[in-house]
Amino acid sequence: MSDSFPLSTYARRLDQAARLAADAGLDGIIATPGPDLEFLIAARLATHERFAGLLLTPTARRLIVPAVDAASLKHSPAGQLGIDIVGWQDGEDPYGHIPAGRFAVSPAMTADHLLRLQGGGVSAVNATGVLSGIFVIKDANEIAQLRHAAEAIDDVHRAVPALLRPGVTEKEVAEELDQRIIASHGTTDFVIVGSGPHGADPHHDYSDRQLQPGDIVVVDIGGTLPSGYHSDCTRMYVVGEPTAEQQRIYDVLRQAQEAGVAFARPGVTAAQVDRVVREVIENAGYGEAFIHRTGHGIGLSCHEEPSIMAGNDLELKEGMAFSIEPGVYFPGQWGARIEDIVVLTSDGAQPLNRTTHDLVRVPSSA
Amino acid sequence: MSDSFPLSTYARRLDQAARLAADAGLDGIIATPGPDLEFLIAARLATHERFAGLLLTPTARRLIVPAVDAASLKHSPAGQLGIDIVGWQDGEDPYGHIPAGRFAVSPAMTADHLLRLQGGGVSAVNATGVLSGIFVIKDANEIAQLRHAAEAIDDVHRAVPALLRPGVTEKEVAEELDQRIIASHGTTDFVIVGSGPHGADPHHDYSDRQLQPGDIVVVDIGGTLPSGYHSDCTRMYVVGEPTAEQQRIYDVLRQAQEAGVAFARPGVTAAQVDRVVREVIENAGYGEAFIHRTGHGIGLSCHEEPSIMAGNDLELKEGMAFSIEPGVYFPGQWGARIEDIVVLTSDGAQPLNRTTHDLVRVPSSA
Repeated sequence: MSDSFPLSTYARRLDQAARLAADAGLDGIIATPGPDLEFLIAARLATHERFAGLLLTPTARRLIVPAVDAASLKHSPAGQLGIDIVGWQDGEDPYGHIPAGRFAVSPAMTADHLLRLQGGGVSAVNATGVLSGIFVIKDANEIAQLRHAAEAIDDVHRAVPALLRPGVTEKEVAEELDQRIIASHGTTDFVIVGSGPHGADPHHDYSDRQLQPGDIVVVDIGGTLPSGYHSDCTRMYVVGEPTAEQQRIYDVLRQAQEAGVAFARPGVTAAQVDRVVREVIENAGYGEAFIHRTGHGIGLSCHEEPSIMAGNDLELKEGMAFSIEPGVYFPGQWGARIEDIVVLTSDGAQPLNRTTHDLVRVPSSA
Repeated sequence: MSDSFPLSTYARRLDQAARLAADAGLDGIIATPGPDLEFLIAARLATHERFAGLLLTPTARRLIVPAVDAASLKHSPAGQLGIDIVGWQDGEDPYGHIPAGRFAVSPAMTADHLLRLQGGGVSAVNATGVLSGIFVIKDANEIAQLRHAAEAIDDVHRAVPALLRPGVTEKEVAEELDQRIIASHGTTDFVIVGSGPHGADPHHDYSDRQLQPGDIVVVDIGGTLPSGYHSDCTRMYVVGEPTAEQQRIYDVLRQAQEAGVAFARPGVTAAQVDRVVREVIENAGYGEAFIHRTGHGIGLSCHEEPSIMAGNDLELKEGMAFSIEPGVYFPGQWGARIEDIVVLTSDGAQPLNRTTHDLVRVPSSA
């Protein structure tokens, strides 16, 4: 539960969301469990395949929820926000509580629910665009939570060098990091320990591979605080010493990442940030090795807008929070990525992660 | 990966799926990551918000996948099944690889993808109905996996009595069970330890509440095997002795659950099974306390068709696997549920879970 925020935060968000939907010419919003619902009413529901949703229109605030999950709402301020809670039992039709009309729907709503709603006369658009003016602009309380999350993951990264040594497996390192993320955050979102050739797969998690002298090791980790806010940070380690070429490429990557942080500020577009970062790597001759976007928004979800990539002409604004995480990948050999979460202030991008950007050396012998 | 099954299994399923779509008057199927994709091509992809999907038409077998996740396919037989793998990079449009037309789409597809596909001329129906003839009818290999999963969770339940004692918290018990499920299955899906009044919330997970003498304790646990198949089993425990009334109600619940198992067989409907179970509880005067359906299908997903509930006139067939799990809930006091997974054979319903249905006593003093 986002119970760290005052009730007035949710009351304001509900008013703003209803107004944004009306401004977009819509009849309202249908928010299903996930970041949207948590943002609007601090409700974190795991309803599996049963439908749950908040209907928000100029005249209705109705939360439709399976009777078996109603107890999950005990920590939500829904009752104090003038929301009518409608429970439904297995065998009843929950969709009948949603009128026909044009609605913004949560991007995380699943097709089984959306197709049923559409069949009942709902015309749907993605709520991401409609709500972006409030969801992706973090207020001071949200930024404080993102800062706590970043400090928590930084502490875990500070423990990494002592865990890396020849012979230890990626899995052993990952299991220890998982425990430390649980201890510092509450929940682990993911742990990537990509050593040597495994570092060349950006979404490798971990394996039974033993670390070897000379391995470059990608450690990309993230967790969720009890407030629902996420961390996500990548740092790079080497067992012993890198080759001169690896160090040279690493320095290019670091320069690219830091150029992105220096450039990002309110008024530029997401695509422009991507371009600045990518150009550093392209100019050094490694553009082909940088196979993904530069970054993604973060908050109550791990990955959200703004997506920092070519083609996204979204203008960045004060209060947006996102990653800047270029990477280079050499299949069968090694890979590297450096990632900070930054928050945009009127002065530019402020990195929340504070541990070193150096390629950190760990001993290759006991 | 479902790499426990031979390649011919997936080749057959792809042919059947394409034919079922054509029989339904559709142009094909679009399967996104989740149980459908695992069923069809043994691919388990975690692509986050990036689109990945299998397009299956009479003339095309195309897997559209983010370039950064392409490595996840290394264990999938996609390449040996005549599937054309199309990678896409951030900033490119993945949806352009899907033609306009009428398609069955995965129920787990998220609205952000479905709305984009619909905007591109895709008219969608839920694939659950179209594929149900193959997805919910388990073959011998699948039943063997469900049996292994049931044996694995039964072993965990056998360890429960030794963990329960006055003073231990639900969370301490849950953490121990989590470790045992990981050891026996690979992955934990969920752990519910609902003691005393917490047992009255069917979806309670666990808390810091300490067990007390006289507590009735609901233990509902499940995990996933490396093959992707799930277990799910609820057993009941009591610290010391129940009251005479609790034992009487428990006996009604047990009678209801066992009546459902005795009744379920090919040819009856899901709703009829629910009715038989519910009537036992209603006739004893506790119908109001049984607030959920009788059961759910299980396989590559935790919850799937057939849903054993009122209104579901689906005729049950040989090879279907589902839970029979009535429960009674008395808010603020206690609750109970008994759950077995059963597989339908020509002879009737065969329970896969084999531990006792007794309300198991554990000592209330050391």
